[in-house]
Amino acid sequence: MKVSSKVDSMYIPGYQDVETAHKRIAPYIHRTPILTSMFMNELTGADLFFKCENFQKAGAFKVRGASNAVFGLTDKQAAKGVATHSSGNHGLSLSYAAGRRGIPVSVVVPRTAPEAKKQAMRGYGATVVECEPGTSSREAVFADVVAKSGADFVHPYNDPRVIAGQATCSREMLEELGTLDAIVAPIGGGGMVSGTCLTVSSIAPGTRIYAAEPVNADDAHRSFKAGHIIADDAPDTVADGLKVPLKELTWHFVKNHVEDILTASEQEIIDAMYLTWQRMKIVMEPSSAVPLAAIIKNRELFAGKRVGVIITGGNVDLDKLPWLG
Amino acid sequence: MKVSSKVDSMYIPGYQDVETAHKRIAPYIHRTPILTSMFMNELTGADLFFKCENFQKAGAFKVRGASNAVFGLTDKQAAKGVATHSSGNHGLSLSYAAGRRGIPVSVVVPRTAPEAKKQAMRGYGATVVECEPGTSSREAVFADVVAKSGADFVHPYNDPRVIAGQATCSREMLEELGTLDAIVAPIGGGGMVSGTCLTVSSIAPGTRIYAAEPVNADDAHRSFKAGHIIADDAPDTVADGLKVPLKELTWHFVKNHVEDILTASEQEIIDAMYLTWQRMKIVMEPSSAVPLAAIIKNRELFAGKRVGVIITGGNVDLDKLPWLG
Repeated sequence: MKVSSKVDSMYIPGYQDVETAHKRIAPYIHRTPILTSMFMNELTGADLFFKCENFQKAGAFKVRGASNAVFGLTDKQAAKGVATHSSGNHGLSLSYAAGRRGIPVSVVVPRTAPEAKKQAMRGYGATVVECEPGTSSREAVFADVVAKSGADFVHPYNDPRVIAGQATCSREMLEELGTLDAIVAPIGGGGMVSGTCLTVSSIAPGTRIYAAEPVNADDAHRSFKAGHIIADDAPDTVADGLKVPLKELTWHFVKNHVEDILTASEQEIIDAMYLTWQRMKIVMEPSSAVPLAAIIKNRELFAGKRVGVIITGGNVDLDKLPWLG
Repeated sequence: MKVSSKVDSMYIPGYQDVETAHKRIAPYIHRTPILTSMFMNELTGADLFFKCENFQKAGAFKVRGASNAVFGLTDKQAAKGVATHSSGNHGLSLSYAAGRRGIPVSVVVPRTAPEAKKQAMRGYGATVVECEPGTSSREAVFADVVAKSGADFVHPYNDPRVIAGQATCSREMLEELGTLDAIVAPIGGGGMVSGTCLTVSSIAPGTRIYAAEPVNADDAHRSFKAGHIIADDAPDTVADGLKVPLKELTWHFVKNHVEDILTASEQEIIDAMYLTWQRMKIVMEPSSAVPLAAIIKNRELFAGKRVGVIITGGNVDLDKLPWLG
């Protein structure tokens, strides 16, 4: 059992936190199916096992971490609600989890974010607070929300409760699949990859962890090579869930447990996404296609191996598909 | 046990044929998952169970009937191969099944059919024989193919082996789900609906069978009301798997066992398809959306009931989605 400790004054979750999280969130999440595809196996030469978090509640794995944070609060803390800034899956997931617990939730979202996403958050009961695009407005507006409400800040990934929640995903994979040679997950801020590191290093240390990242937002790849966090200002990629940088807690897991960070071009990501929709008949978002793109590109690393692939989410704008230009 | 008999000199399959078919085809088909969706249940007021034949081998339920026909042939018959005319899922499925058995298969396809479909059939080992669009060229070319090869003609639906094969789908649903108040399936030529009638009338006579059809190709609906087969010449609908008319064997099952044939407009079909992709994260073809469209439209028939919904296939042109105009 890994002993928990701290990094930059943050608590580092241990595997006991994953077990606690899994029991805590079980009533609020789906145990998502794991799909296989003969076509994909023939294409890559590997035995691929796709963990379908696109079928997860609120459409993405993020609901695991968000639920762990929300349902871990004492009643007194919970009464003041939770808050975050996110125009993506974390905002939606935190809204869902808070809605299930029946507590207030505020999500700070850029004014320019798609109306459909704001509506979906409100549909779960969230108060959507708009800010101007850009970090300074977001931080000012968010500080104001927290000061007024006393809400608990649930960071999208740099939070031990969130990482312990995301770690339940690879726990389900290993329970169901037994030994795996490798697990490949997309990396943005590193919440899912950190959770995977936490589980795998604790219960399956022989399984290699690969992170997959767009070339166009390869800050984690460059951080990994440089040995310290590199954050880009505003990367542009179709995999819009992967634009955010590593933070201290996720960097701790990535630098200690990840085998390598592989990259894929925009076209390779779009091709892998198209192929998955076409052959596996599942809807997944561009970020979720990055692992398959990396596996196709790095055949020699995976051929002949049993490989878990995390399909992180399915929230995509069906009116604006990337292969339709 | 229903006693088998004949209609217009055709053998009428009985439930023993379904049991035989299920054993015969098991190695070549997927036992497809049944998905539920809280969103869809809230929308319709019913408990819906979606049988996902879009995840089936070759992307559609048609592989059940095609495999039953192909693997039921004696070695002597099989050596001469099989043939059909179909530019859709049946052609693809027969190609797959024949490929698995390693026997010749010819598919007569209109010259104007999408190149991707022809390529997919060739990928399974089929000889694709092109004809001019229209019935007369198709029949002439097909007669020539059969005369030269002696191949066994596997009709897309008006064939007892095919109907017994399709009947295994509702058998799996009833095995897994127990009692259902109703099953809803799309109807074109009536192969899947006939198979459903065969199974349900034999082992779950209390379950009502509803067929769902596009308003734009409502020949089965009008046949059902009139009491005899009405065939339209060239109906135009986004649900392109449902353009073909009933034939004597499928009419036999439909008129005796179907509760009603419900219809949905083009826009209702497209809306139900979009909603399924968006909320359930699965890729399905327009024909598969007709049952959900009919359930949404006829809420009073299904609210409070346990309803099986057959998602018949997932072969859709991702470059040409109907809601993108």
